Amino acid sequence: MTLDLLDTPAAVIDIPQMEKNISLMQEHMRELGVKFRPHVKTTKCVEVVRAQIAAGARGITVSTLKEAEEFFAAGVVDILYAVGVDPSKLPRAMALKRKGCDLKLVVDNPAAAAAVVEFSRQHKADFEIWIEVDTDGHRSGITPEEDALLEVGKILRDAEIKVGGVMTHAGSSYELNAREALQELAEQERAGCVRAAQRLREIGLPCAGVSVGSTPTAIAAQNLDGVTEVRAGVYVLFDLVMHNVGVCAFDDIALSVLTTVIGHQADKGWAILDAGWMAMSRDRGTAKQSHDFGYGQPCTLDGRPLSGYILSGANQEHGILSPVQSETTDGADAQDVRTRFPIGMKLRILPNHACATGAQFPEYHALAATGELTIWRRFHGW
Amino acid sequence: MTLDLLDTPAAVIDIPQMEKNISLMQEHMRELGVKFRPHVKTTKCVEVVRAQIAAGARGITVSTLKEAEEFFAAGVVDILYAVGVDPSKLPRAMALKRKGCDLKLVVDNPAAAAAVVEFSRQHKADFEIWIEVDTDGHRSGITPEEDALLEVGKILRDAEIKVGGVMTHAGSSYELNAREALQELAEQERAGCVRAAQRLREIGLPCAGVSVGSTPTAIAAQNLDGVTEVRAGVYVLFDLVMHNVGVCAFDDIALSVLTTVIGHQADKGWAILDAGWMAMSRDRGTAKQSHDFGYGQPCTLDGRPLSGYILSGANQEHGILSPVQSETTDGADAQDVRTRFPIGMKLRILPNHACATGAQFPEYHALAATGELTIWRRFHGW
Repeated sequence: MTLDLLDTPAAVIDIPQMEKNISLMQEHMRELGVKFRPHVKTTKCVEVVRAQIAAGARGITVSTLKEAEEFFAAGVVDILYAVGVDPSKLPRAMALKRKGCDLKLVVDNPAAAAAVVEFSRQHKADFEIWIEVDTDGHRSGITPEEDALLEVGKILRDAEIKVGGVMTHAGSSYELNAREALQELAEQERAGCVRAAQRLREIGLPCAGVSVGSTPTAIAAQNLDGVTEVRAGVYVLFDLVMHNVGVCAFDDIALSVLTTVIGHQADKGWAILDAGWMAMSRDRGTAKQSHDFGYGQPCTLDGRPLSGYILSGANQEHGILSPVQSETTDGADAQDVRTRFPIGMKLRILPNHACATGAQFPEYHALAATGELTIWRRFHGW
Repeated sequence: MTLDLLDTPAAVIDIPQMEKNISLMQEHMRELGVKFRPHVKTTKCVEVVRAQIAAGARGITVSTLKEAEEFFAAGVVDILYAVGVDPSKLPRAMALKRKGCDLKLVVDNPAAAAAVVEFSRQHKADFEIWIEVDTDGHRSGITPEEDALLEVGKILRDAEIKVGGVMTHAGSSYELNAREALQELAEQERAGCVRAAQRLREIGLPCAGVSVGSTPTAIAAQNLDGVTEVRAGVYVLFDLVMHNVGVCAFDDIALSVLTTVIGHQADKGWAILDAGWMAMSRDRGTAKQSHDFGYGQPCTLDGRPLSGYILSGANQEHGILSPVQSETTDGADAQDVRTRFPIGMKLRILPNHACATGAQFPEYHALAATGELTIWRRFHGW
């Protein structure tokens, strides 16, 4: 099977580009002297994660217990479940631990810590807990100087629950687009997380692990003193949001959606594609960035971006390819849409957000340098 | 299994409400004297479609060949594939026809019609084609007075391809919110589609079917003279976009996402939930409507809307529940978030868009009036 014969829409991973992304990140981590624990929520795909581990990743990060179960079944043992644990999920987490999975859970509040203590007592479970630290105010975690940090630490310490470390995610990095601002945020993420670990150590918790990361801060980081590991997810494929943040170029984006032209509205300059939001996802992450790509950046079948066009609209199974209004130079361009994009023509669309677009597909079609395609299964659900 | 014990996030369908939605639409169609062909892209779920057929639906509408294959395997024979056909999908469509599926394909341009003619000749395929009509300029189709309509008709007529009818979808109805405007658009949709059929009949095409519909126009329609069937999809579950369009109330929404409170940022008045955009989808369809619900409307476990709160933000597996700023009366309300929404509390979130939210889940949990839950599988992919 080759790309031109593939049923559309299809999610295509460019394998050489993916491997380059993996290798560059791993090398950067080696230079900074930290372990790298990729976040596998981006792809939920065993073949991708095997490539990350083969390149030197030490353990993985997951966002759901389903991911933990699937990757443990595929042979990955060291797993950080990086979402604050819902107490009712503890039985399922314990089952994984008892099968031999080195699963680490996260809490960021006294009530969740107390629930872990109570459950551990009742079931003689031996969870390893990491405490989530808030270093940029964008979502979860306890800020480094807050009383609650020590409160959580003491609840776990007094119950003799193993505290493996602290972790933070400076997700507000997605809102930046300047190298210097990213470097500052990376330093803020590092310093806050190291400080939280120090405070916990002062009350007698070993807190050996100090885990930070988001793709932009991981790439921007210049010094990670006190940090033991970095996490990042979307770097493996990259996307248009990361392009706008300034941490990748079009050429670095290893995921695209293959689509076919199925119609036109010539007077509007539109070509209608069979990739709508069900294929691209509803993610409009570039809408509030410096360059709005609509639902994606169209490219030729061999991957060259079609400058001056975007996927400007999407219904469930229809995408609207149209000229970027500010870049349309004359009416003639709009009128020749039928000849430029004839019925049956295949295109590839770079996505706004690789995590969201991938989730729309049961599988990736992995494209080798030879042009050969392999199906890589992707799971979904919880 | 009961709702309070279910793993979260989960997509819950309230069966009695769904059956009421099905029954009201079917009754309305009976009164208008037309057949009803539900669009199954909303749920992609055999149990839901069986309920629609049991209530009187005649055939189904699909948005992908995968849906056609799955529902044909489940016993549905009369299927309209309502997306302009990509010529490279004709072999797959032919395989379905040859198994006995009464599959109808759609074209809206001469090139696609010519491709169908050519393929039919080469493979002795006997496709039934419907011509897509554009009655509101929002996406695909040929406008009723356009020359291309007859051009397509003649290409098919001269090749003796069966033309089953014309179809249109006034999807711009989603942008309205007044009863009168919806009634006007329903009439525009009807009149345009009937006119297109008339023009095709004048050149000798029987064009027996005249198919119209979108949930808002189907509900608003008062007279469907000349129309033979109506299509609608999201009415079966409804959602917040339809609430804003004015065609359903909160109570009519039969889909919700069950979630658990996993954290707080008390100074911001936030509760953190385990339903992020992976569960809710990235659909922000209410953002440009009269009432922006963020990523959804929180409700209690038994389904009562929590007025004054929305899901204001979402990361992949984190949702942020917060007070609607304009409705916050004092600081005290924001401060009591920990006691009002304690760790482990279950909530249900009404979605912006039932089609998009459902697509995030491999299955629905169908809730009977007794409180009993049944798993209904939902498929995805193409």
